[in-house]
Amino acid sequence: MPSPRPNVFAIDPHNLFDSRPTFSHVAVSAPGSRVVMTAGQVGADVNGKVPGNVEEQIRLAFANLTRCLESVGAHVTDIVKLVYYIVDYDHTKRNHAKPLLDFLGGHRPATTLVPVPKLARPEFLFEVEAYVSLPQLPSQDVDVVVIGAGLSGLKAAYEVQQAGYSCAVVEARDRVGGKTWSSDRTDKGKFVDVGAAWINDTNQSEVFRLVQELGLETVVQNTTGNKLSEANGVESMLFLRNKAEEVCQSLDIRDPLRNGSHLDNMSFEDWVRSVTGPSESALASASIWTRAMLGMEPREVSALFFLNYCKSGGGLLQMRSDQKNGGQYLRLAKGTQKIAIGLANLLRPDTITLSSPVRVVEQAASAIQVHSTRRTYTCKRVIVSVPTPLYKEITFHPALPADKLELSRLNRHGYTNKVMVRYSSPWWRGYGLCGMLQSFAGPVTVTRDSSVDELGQFSLTCFCVGDWGRQLSKLSQAERFAAVVEHVTKTLGSAGSVPQPIGIEEHEWQWDQWSQGCPCPAAPPRVMTRLEPALRASHGKIHFVGTETAYEWKGYMDGALRSGARGGREVIDALGHGKL
Amino acid sequence: MPSPRPNVFAIDPHNLFDSRPTFSHVAVSAPGSRVVMTAGQVGADVNGKVPGNVEEQIRLAFANLTRCLESVGAHVTDIVKLVYYIVDYDHTKRNHAKPLLDFLGGHRPATTLVPVPKLARPEFLFEVEAYVSLPQLPSQDVDVVVIGAGLSGLKAAYEVQQAGYSCAVVEARDRVGGKTWSSDRTDKGKFVDVGAAWINDTNQSEVFRLVQELGLETVVQNTTGNKLSEANGVESMLFLRNKAEEVCQSLDIRDPLRNGSHLDNMSFEDWVRSVTGPSESALASASIWTRAMLGMEPREVSALFFLNYCKSGGGLLQMRSDQKNGGQYLRLAKGTQKIAIGLANLLRPDTITLSSPVRVVEQAASAIQVHSTRRTYTCKRVIVSVPTPLYKEITFHPALPADKLELSRLNRHGYTNKVMVRYSSPWWRGYGLCGMLQSFAGPVTVTRDSSVDELGQFSLTCFCVGDWGRQLSKLSQAERFAAVVEHVTKTLGSAGSVPQPIGIEEHEWQWDQWSQGCPCPAAPPRVMTRLEPALRASHGKIHFVGTETAYEWKGYMDGALRSGARGGREVIDALGHGKL
Repeated sequence: MPSPRPNVFAIDPHNLFDSRPTFSHVAVSAPGSRVVMTAGQVGADVNGKVPGNVEEQIRLAFANLTRCLESVGAHVTDIVKLVYYIVDYDHTKRNHAKPLLDFLGGHRPATTLVPVPKLARPEFLFEVEAYVSLPQLPSQDVDVVVIGAGLSGLKAAYEVQQAGYSCAVVEARDRVGGKTWSSDRTDKGKFVDVGAAWINDTNQSEVFRLVQELGLETVVQNTTGNKLSEANGVESMLFLRNKAEEVCQSLDIRDPLRNGSHLDNMSFEDWVRSVTGPSESALASASIWTRAMLGMEPREVSALFFLNYCKSGGGLLQMRSDQKNGGQYLRLAKGTQKIAIGLANLLRPDTITLSSPVRVVEQAASAIQVHSTRRTYTCKRVIVSVPTPLYKEITFHPALPADKLELSRLNRHGYTNKVMVRYSSPWWRGYGLCGMLQSFAGPVTVTRDSSVDELGQFSLTCFCVGDWGRQLSKLSQAERFAAVVEHVTKTLGSAGSVPQPIGIEEHEWQWDQWSQGCPCPAAPPRVMTRLEPALRASHGKIHFVGTETAYEWKGYMDGALRSGARGGREVIDALGHGKL
Repeated sequence: MPSPRPNVFAIDPHNLFDSRPTFSHVAVSAPGSRVVMTAGQVGADVNGKVPGNVEEQIRLAFANLTRCLESVGAHVTDIVKLVYYIVDYDHTKRNHAKPLLDFLGGHRPATTLVPVPKLARPEFLFEVEAYVSLPQLPSQDVDVVVIGAGLSGLKAAYEVQQAGYSCAVVEARDRVGGKTWSSDRTDKGKFVDVGAAWINDTNQSEVFRLVQELGLETVVQNTTGNKLSEANGVESMLFLRNKAEEVCQSLDIRDPLRNGSHLDNMSFEDWVRSVTGPSESALASASIWTRAMLGMEPREVSALFFLNYCKSGGGLLQMRSDQKNGGQYLRLAKGTQKIAIGLANLLRPDTITLSSPVRVVEQAASAIQVHSTRRTYTCKRVIVSVPTPLYKEITFHPALPADKLELSRLNRHGYTNKVMVRYSSPWWRGYGLCGMLQSFAGPVTVTRDSSVDELGQFSLTCFCVGDWGRQLSKLSQAERFAAVVEHVTKTLGSAGSVPQPIGIEEHEWQWDQWSQGCPCPAAPPRVMTRLEPALRASHGKIHFVGTETAYEWKGYMDGALRSGARGGREVIDALGHGKL
């Protein structure tokens, strides 16, 4: 994966005053670049809410500008020019200087500062616009283009290349792995997984075989000690669980509507109430399931979707289990992103282009053209591995069929944010706890021990999910982290003292440009009935993969790989059963 | 030498109000252009000083913008868009209109005028930013790229082409000749040399042979009549001159440190004082030498450097002489730039690309890439002919060796500005004067008759050099010209009346983007001792020429040509002694 060469070149003309460190008098784009211009970015959040504080507005405006850059795969170093507009500008204060320097990180575009009497809305105090230069890579002519370098896309590319076809992978992010992302802020190899974390070694055979091939070390999920479950009606929970297990086992994952079409007319909440009556404790249990497994509330998801989702992992019990054969049995000592990195390394050199979002796919009789922001491809087949709800990010010519478009619009990612709290020791084990907490009070829904003992990485994964997660998301990060730590301390630490965390990290997938949620797009009621066939349907010579399209282990890494293999096979078959 | 094709295309959309003559409603860049954006340019000088007067600020802002354009080899006609920000804008005054029209010279970019309450600093009243489009020429693959089309670069290219190798010359300026530049504001062939002016026909054999080959007409420097020397101690001057001549004759120009290393521990001023004691008149003479010859004060230059510099021209006496064999014996009737133009015409067609500053040179095992702002070259060898202090303008990968970088940082150009005063007749001759003045009072240090009688070009070259020159530089041009004329009138014209000049011109090489001083980079004390070997050392496959690297006639055109021939030979030898 080549890292982009320096693009924008800052020049200090002789005999002009020294512009370091903030800007340069002249900035030149690389030859053959494409120009990107942003609207003026103000300190307003996604809902248009504007902080009263000017420093917060400035910070938010730069955060918004960062999102603009992400949307085209640009980096700060691609900025040629910044113009900032400041209301009530006071040259003795220069509030913008610190956030600007932080944002630029040493890059020096040409800049202009424009004091203005006011901006578009009276509450706006700061606005910044960018002119960006995106260097263009030579166009490529290949058999197959895979859009997205998550596990499903990488797997599809691998299969295509193994069959002897040329294949390029084009990725919007500056990394591979999609919703697997292993963070190591310690810089000491102590990774935590802010994305997908668990596999098993039995029924998740696709992912486990790959993990073995890549020689990646696994860690058994710690289940020694008590699980903690805040008070709830056990009986109604067991009744509901058994009933859900029974119904979900009756479903056919290859054709869920055959036995389950009636379940698609209701939300999972409707179904729970139909089974348990007005038992709030049963609904509370059901809420933990949908929150932890989909980041959603039971009211948001079709009963059929949820139960079929469980069935894809062998059933509710197995999917929720941390034991042998369960969904959360093993983790990877150095993080799950190593799977994607390993798979990427199995591809031919220079297969993958990073930081290059695909924005247009033009399908003609003769060939398909895939236009990313940094490169154009001509190919015979395309495999789209981006999450279904993100199809809107790509303009297809001709347009996607109406049912696929509607599915893309209606299927939604839940809110899942795993706040990873690092400690210097696994103190909860001293209180006889395995680290598993299920909360009916919130704000954290579930916690799990995510330590890797042999590396000295001790941490709790705190699932901030569903409505409680969305509430936490409205807080500042500091407030959110404090709330999470307080919850953990009061529950797992109720028996004694709890040390201060040594680090906390998170990734709010909801705000991630290229996921827009996590872990798996899910259908509200009455969507599968009409649109399930559209999920995996190809569009001309364009094929669709992604963990949500898997039959087995939807939403898991195993499902992602299986869907990628399926997409690869579709394309190989279409191209004529391989060249080799 | 192809002149750049029209790049920006102005469009007047039907049914919009007439935007002539200042701007156009739409401006389009050529396809395959590279985008350049400037920071907002204000009316602040190199030290950040801001004139109180708004007209002066506007003029200065456009001058600064011109420097930004120069730094990438852009012309005003490459501007796509201008935005100007005006404090206290009064539509009835429009102070900016005249300087803007002068700046644009008929070009009509798209523009926006933005009245603002203030600018980044309270004293700023005007700011202008430009969006520029640089058309890109097709990349070239050649054996050798020469950076710089001054005499040394052109000579190197000529030798390389004569040996049968392909060679491209890439030049930052919009003309050839470097520090030779012949101005003809009269437009009647009456050139004056604002840069290098003198040669001789004996020991400057390289340049004289070329002048003969090119059929250029020479003019003998007028020495008929008295020299004028403002009162000074003649005895101490003669003693010092003889001593300097003696020491400089003892030096070996091929290895000056062998006999002269002790002289590098002191400035030339220190050496003068060590020879003459506290004689201010001796130092005043020494000052005339370093000022006239290097644009420097005796305190600024190493004694060894200065004496070796003299030796390179045969000794102090010969280098300073206007007689046969002397450094200032002959001029060219139509100006010395004709040498560079003639040499350029001896190169293969389309060898030279103008207005294309090289900003990056990437040296890899396989090839070298030279990136100019308008074209990229792939080649086997590079010859850098820009002045040593300007290496900083080029980013080398891998970086230049530390000693070469340090030499580039420490060796400095002096301040030399030849103010050329034209008269309708050589009135000084009527007073029995040859036009040569040496002043111990300033502000002009030396004058010489630079007339070409047969063309009716009558002028005095007035050397504004060293500290006195730097003082004059702080004045406005009108004030500076007045001071120069007054000095000439009072001295050469003291015996009678002096006619008004019919024209005055100058080029302040100090502010020239691509020279940053004149005539020749010189070393302060203790630089040669450590860094002299780095001066001509190649860096991998990159070679270095320039008049300061010559052994003979450093700082003269003859030295430039000799250094170019040396660099050409180095490259030809490296490539295998020629193909023909």
